[in-house]
Amino acid sequence: MNRTPIPDIVVGRLPRYLQALRQMAEAGKTTTSSKELGQWLRISAAQIRKDLSQFGEFGKQGTGYAIPFLIEQLQDILNVNRCWDVAIIGAGNLGHAIVRYQGFANRGFCIACIFDNDPAKIGQRIGDHIVEDIANIENAIQKLGIKIALLTVPASEAQAMAEHLVAVGIKAILNYAPVPLDLPPEVRVQNIDPLIQLQHMTYYLE
Amino acid sequence: MNRTPIPDIVVGRLPRYLQALRQMAEAGKTTTSSKELGQWLRISAAQIRKDLSQFGEFGKQGTGYAIPFLIEQLQDILNVNRCWDVAIIGAGNLGHAIVRYQGFANRGFCIACIFDNDPAKIGQRIGDHIVEDIANIENAIQKLGIKIALLTVPASEAQAMAEHLVAVGIKAILNYAPVPLDLPPEVRVQNIDPLIQLQHMTYYLE
Repeated sequence: MNRTPIPDIVVGRLPRYLQALRQMAEAGKTTTSSKELGQWLRISAAQIRKDLSQFGEFGKQGTGYAIPFLIEQLQDILNVNRCWDVAIIGAGNLGHAIVRYQGFANRGFCIACIFDNDPAKIGQRIGDHIVEDIANIENAIQKLGIKIALLTVPASEAQAMAEHLVAVGIKAILNYAPVPLDLPPEVRVQNIDPLIQLQHMTYYLE
Repeated sequence: MNRTPIPDIVVGRLPRYLQALRQMAEAGKTTTSSKELGQWLRISAAQIRKDLSQFGEFGKQGTGYAIPFLIEQLQDILNVNRCWDVAIIGAGNLGHAIVRYQGFANRGFCIACIFDNDPAKIGQRIGDHIVEDIANIENAIQKLGIKIALLTVPASEAQAMAEHLVAVGIKAILNYAPVPLDLPPEVRVQNIDPLIQLQHMTYYLE
């Protein structure tokens, strides 16, 4: 597999292909085509063929893609053929919702622990987890080898907390705080900001 | 203002520019440059200049952008110089977290109402809101002229509920369910899926 020069925008589409293929598999389908996948995702068939061809030969002219095989290949490429332990930072409403969300485990992610700095929250039970003191995060993260954190602290605390996470070994942050994080370039950051997406849509509304 | 042919990918970056400018303004800054804005957002200065130039002349060679003016212009372009009423569909953990989130109002969005179909949830108080019966949504949406919904129902219910929302007048859906929605092309859809973004990052992890 040639891993060198894949544009990040192509990488970002692969999880969507994987998601659609899994839904097709759950619906009992065993093969698909770039055309069908494209209709499902509102992406052109040519784009899908071009994206996938960067990683290898996954389909056959005329017969399309074998869904279970392509799922396996995409899981390998995306490194989700395993379970990544993740840490939730912040036990507010959003932290609670994430811990209780059932959809992570079968898609490559296990919630390992949740932290807060508020004495009123530390020790609280959320689902199967107990909120831990953020002061203990270094130990916990290093003991479990955790590389991924979901950051759900207030905007005013996000940058300092993100820097702390990087200092204790976190390599990838899913940032729910509505501020961009300024971190070393080798740290992966993805932002979830519903307001950005709402404002994208209002452009088109009357 | 020439509204005709702006690529959607450019439109999608404008809310990020607006967010960064507001944060600069809150930090007491009054002018900025495409270079500074680019460093803040990890976008090239050339890209920012090119994006903004599609909407008009907002800066001056050498002196850069006046932040309050550019904020106002971007708010106009994105139609967020007003408050959009939004409806939350689904009063689970995520619906609760969204209703309690304080960050919407000053950025163009007011939570007007929240709906569920679960008799155990209907009538529940969440913050200043009472969960309403989804059976009453048509009345509520049409009375208030609501065009935007945040969809936080389970994946298995998302498509049917989205179709119902469109039938009663919703024009834009922020979809938190981990399934793509198949809706008429004139309906705007943005998806929030933390798993897609996590899988994007694991590609780069060892």
